[in-house]
This record gives sequence, C-alpha cells and structure tokens, in this order.
Amino acid sequence: MTTRPFFPALDHVHMAHALRLAANGLHTTQPNPRVGCVIARGDTVLGTGWHPRAGEPHAEVFALREAGESARGATAYVTLEPCAHHGRTPPCADALIAAGVGRVVIAAEDPFPQVDGAGIAKLRDAGIGVQLGLMRDQARELNIGFFSRIERHRPWVRVKLAMSLDGRTGLANGESKWITGEDARADVQRYRARSSAILSASGTVLADNPHLTVRLPGDDAFVAPMRVILDRELKTPAGAHVLDDAAPTWLLHADDVAVPAHLQHVKRAAIRRDGDGLDLAAVMHWMGRHDINEVHVEAGPTLCGALLAAGLADEMILYIAPVLLGHTGRPLLNLPPLDDMASRWKLRTTERRQVGDDMRLTLRPGG
Amino acid sequence: MTTRPFFPALDHVHMAHALRLAANGLHTTQPNPRVGCVIARGDTVLGTGWHPRAGEPHAEVFALREAGESARGATAYVTLEPCAHHGRTPPCADALIAAGVGRVVIAAEDPFPQVDGAGIAKLRDAGIGVQLGLMRDQARELNIGFFSRIERHRPWVRVKLAMSLDGRTGLANGESKWITGEDARADVQRYRARSSAILSASGTVLADNPHLTVRLPGDDAFVAPMRVILDRELKTPAGAHVLDDAAPTWLLHADDVAVPAHLQHVKRAAIRRDGDGLDLAAVMHWMGRHDINEVHVEAGPTLCGALLAAGLADEMILYIAPVLLGHTGRPLLNLPPLDDMASRWKLRTTERRQVGDDMRLTLRPGG
Repeated sequence: MTTRPFFPALDHVHMAHALRLAANGLHTTQPNPRVGCVIARGDTVLGTGWHPRAGEPHAEVFALREAGESARGATAYVTLEPCAHHGRTPPCADALIAAGVGRVVIAAEDPFPQVDGAGIAKLRDAGIGVQLGLMRDQARELNIGFFSRIERHRPWVRVKLAMSLDGRTGLANGESKWITGEDARADVQRYRARSSAILSASGTVLADNPHLTVRLPGDDAFVAPMRVILDRELKTPAGAHVLDDAAPTWLLHADDVAVPAHLQHVKRAAIRRDGDGLDLAAVMHWMGRHDINEVHVEAGPTLCGALLAAGLADEMILYIAPVLLGHTGRPLLNLPPLDDMASRWKLRTTERRQVGDDMRLTLRPGG
Repeated sequence: MTTRPFFPALDHVHMAHALRLAANGLHTTQPNPRVGCVIARGDTVLGTGWHPRAGEPHAEVFALREAGESARGATAYVTLEPCAHHGRTPPCADALIAAGVGRVVIAAEDPFPQVDGAGIAKLRDAGIGVQLGLMRDQARELNIGFFSRIERHRPWVRVKLAMSLDGRTGLANGESKWITGEDARADVQRYRARSSAILSASGTVLADNPHLTVRLPGDDAFVAPMRVILDRELKTPAGAHVLDDAAPTWLLHADDVAVPAHLQHVKRAAIRRDGDGLDLAAVMHWMGRHDINEVHVEAGPTLCGALLAAGLADEMILYIAPVLLGHTGRPLLNLPPLDDMASRWKLRTTERRQVGDDMRLTLRPGG
C-alpha cells in the first residue's frame, strides 16, 4: 500500500467513468478482473475502454486505440494496475509508454504475481507520473473475488438465501417454491451471472433437482459459471439437471468413496472429510486453484450454516418476502447452539434494497 | 362518507399543521382522540390548538382563544369533526358558531355515537360552509385505535416483535436480552406510550417478569397504559412486577378458575375459553368496552401467533437485529402448519426504517 495523494474532483470524474466501464465486464471477464480505462486531457475524454473477456484485449488497448495520437501527454485512468507481462496479450504498461501518455492514475494495485507492482515500476521507469489509490475501495469491491483469490487463495463466498419474515425458507413438507417474487428471482440470476462458480450440495440436488444455470433477459452475455456440488458420498443421481451440458460441473466428494458407474465421466475431485461433511476450507482452496473469483452459494441450511460457522461466508444476500410461514417452517441456517447472547453472530448491513415486493439485504460478518 | 372536494394547496398546509398539532397529544389524550385545530385567513395563521388530555379543553377551544376576534369570517381547520354534545366540555361546534368562523374544513368525520355527523349538521344549520375529507387518511391514521374502537368495537392491535435476521427471538436456553440495541428499545417505549393498554401473557410474566410500563426520556408526559395479562389459570405470582402500582393492571382469566388469595385484590375479568387459551376476540371486545384504543402486544410466539392466526393482529412492529442465532433459537411466531405455499400469511410493509443498528418494519396483513 502506498499513501493516498489528494486527487482533484476531475480525477474522480474520470476514474468513476472508468469504473462504470469496467463494470460492463461484470458477467464476462472471469477469471480475469473487470477493468476500465479512460484517457483524458482536462475534462475532455479522448478514449475509453473496458476488458470484455479473457483472451481479448485489455481496457487500456481499447482506450489507446480510440485516443490515437491525442493520447500523447494525456492522462490515463485505469481501475487496476496495468499489466507488465506477456500473457495472452502484450503488456499494457508498454502500450501506455509507447503512446506517450504523460500521467497514469491507478485505482488499485494488481496483486497478481506477474504484475504486483511491476506495471507501476515500468511506467515510472519510463518517466511517467503514476498516482495510486484513487477510488481504490470501489475498484477492489468491483473485483472482490479476484482480489480474494490472489490474496487469500480462495474465492469470495457469497451466500444467497431467501426467507419469510419469520426466517423460514420453506414449509415443513419441503415446499419452497416460491417464497420470493419474480423480481427477486430475476435479481438472483444477476448474482449467478457475475460468479465464477455456483456452489450447492447433493442434498439440494436430490430435493429440488435445480439447474443452477444462469438465465438473463434478452441476449445479455455471460460466461457460464462452473457448477460445484458438494457430494460427499457421490449420491447425485443419473439424469440430475446439474449433470447436463449447460455448464461445466464438478462433484466434490470424500476421498474414500467408490465412484458409481453413472458418474465415471463426470468431473470429480476428492476432498478430505471434516466431521460430518467435507473440509470446507479445502473446498475453498480447491476453488481458488480452479480460478474461481466469486462463488455463489445456493444450498440448504446445513451447508449455508456450516460456511458461516467456519468463517467462510464473506457475504450474505438475503431476500426477505413479506410473508409468514410459522414455526414449523424450515429454518434459515443450521448453526451450533449458542450458550449466551454475547456469542451471537454479528453482521453488518452493507446494502438494503427493495426488489419487487421483497427486501434484499447484503450482509457481511462483523458487527 | 361524502365525496371529497378539491382542496387548494393552502388548505393542505393548514390541515397538515393541524395534524402536527394533534400529534402533540399522542401520549396523553387517551381514551380521547388526538385532535388539532388551526384558524387561518389566507396564509395567516390566527390561532392554533390541540387537545392535550381527557377532561381538558378540545383543540378548537385553544385555537379560538388565541384567534380572539380575528376568528370572525376566518377558516377553521379541524382534524376531527367538532363535537356537538355536552361532555366534560361544551360542544365545539357551538363555540365555532359563536366565534363567527366563515368556513370549517374537517379531515375526518367523528363516528363517536354522540357526534357522528351532528357536529357537521350544527355548523351547516348555522350557515357555515363545511368541507370534509381533506387529509382524511392521515387523520384516521393518527387515531387508528380510536376509530377501531368506535367502528369495530375493539382496539387497534399492534404486535411488537424483535428478532435476529434468521427469525429468532431468543436462545434455546430462553435468553432473549438483548437482541436489539438501545435505540430500538427506546423506540419501543414510544409505541408503549401511545397505547391505551399493553397486552401480555402469564407465560411472559413467569419467564421474564417484565414491568410493562413506559419509560420516556426526560419528563415527557404520558398516560400510563393499562397492563392486561392473559392469565387463563391465574398463575401470576405474588410480587410480579406487573402487580406493582406503576400502572393499572387487569388479569384476564378463564371463567372456571378459582382465584388464589394473593390475587383477590387484583383487578380481574373472566373470559370464555377457546381451545387451549382464552377467546381472543372476546378479549378484544372486553378491551373495547374498557376504552382501549390502541393495544400494544409484547408476548411470546404463542400469543402473538394466535392473534395473527385469528385475524386480530392489525399491525406488526418488527425489529430485526443484524445478528444470527441459528435454528435452535426460539421462533418468532407459532402458527398452524401450512399445507401449501399459497396459504402463507401475506403482509404488506407500510414503513421501513433504520433504528440504530436495527431495522424496523411496520407490517399489516394483506399482500
């Protein structure tokens, strides 16, 4: 981390613009980060760009192309440190230097091992003024999963839950369609679309046979998230929707179970057991190794509760429908019993929004 | 109901003012309604008044006193139809006529049997132009309990609940202090203060020994709400806080139980049994007969659930703390099991507000 210099309002305008551009890639860049770039002189925007998809050019390239010769002496606003290495595309730091930009303002440093300050160093070595940290929090938030994977070696874990006002996710008889309304269900699709993986458990597969795919309106592009099913004993039945070819699927199972014939050709990985289940920290590290940035969890109270209790749930997206189901309904989360109120799990609400008839809360651990 | 004429903006300004004045009596007028009055000519306010307390003058009297001679030919804005009968004070309709006001604008008709249009008729007979219905909904809302008692012969029933995000009101071991924060608990005191009665059950008395009194900051005035305890078998123990002299207390019990010695001098009323409990509709009619406008319910999941299931809960005030207690925690409401999702209890959210760290929802039945 470097100290944060003072940035004038105009810098904020251009960086906010670059962040909005970056967000265009929300559903498509994975496993790459979402990045935007604005090239400007004073309040005149000369070029804009955003990274659309892994394998395609980075944000800086599009912005420099649009700016052309006018980039010389201008300022480039980039939401993430420009790359310094030859990956699938040539280094963006080199492109900025070649274009003759006079100044580069960067929101967030890129912790990716092949960048990690090298882009900044390259620019500075070329005599370009580099300033860091403008709207860094927003830039990190936009790529919260990417930063988690690189820095914590595990994805950002977002647990989606839908419940009645009295905290019930379904009836005693198992019926759970639909507590929330259409708008909330469409909203969930956008959370699925921005994720690299959708995590569920074989219990949910057996009970509800969900598809766990993304359905967006119109022809909105997205990269289909990998489906990851915690299936300790490999009970996923033949013909389960999650085994169709709509998206890649992995079954994670205990390392001592035999593989039934109908799952021989399904992607599988063995995870060590932990108590009654699989070691959830190991599951998360497995996902980190498989380039999962954000994981979207849709599962029952057992898995969701276990993630929370293990400190592995980074965020809860909680839809609350204005209905009551009563005490016989299914609970939201199975958690270890508490001895006293002081040990209750504290959360902080980072966003609250009405979605159709339902309320949506975004919560993160820590009161 | 009469058709609602068109009211110019200035009329709204004065009636809104009168409604704000009326609200000054929120904690003190019971069993009377909260009423405000503004006397004005054009945009000049000549006199204002509000009814402070039963037995003291009505809003119109204060406003006319302040306006004096200037009231002649002016317009009087009253949030509730002026009274036409000699109660503890002389009729306000007569006072308005005597003062020579030229026009009277009334928000809501008074259904009280001794008024019920007689005030309006008196004014019109005197040649005064009377217009009805300006901000009627707001005026009725301010006195929702008064209207309920007169029109439905039972109070407006407001059920206060406090829960964790996962719909739990306490731990399995019974601990429930405190899920919500200080601000929410202070907020509850204001709901208690505006009520004519606080309703609870002997189960809550035995478990928590609550005072069920009002604690407001500073020297804010209030009329102490009557405490009403549903105590079917008269189990309230000697020395229970609800038996102290901080406020009047009634124990409602089954009509076939013997009265223990320590409760011989406590106010009691017999209510017929209904299933495992007392007939809740009969309880509400008893309260209506005892001049209860708004009843504030603080009880456990059994009574709160039974009120809801019986269609007797008119409003829920639900505080939601950003904490989780898990599936072993105590449920919010005991409700009869549902056979299908279509029969879930639907509510509509009439207000949503942050109170300290907690969220407060106001909910009414009907989706």
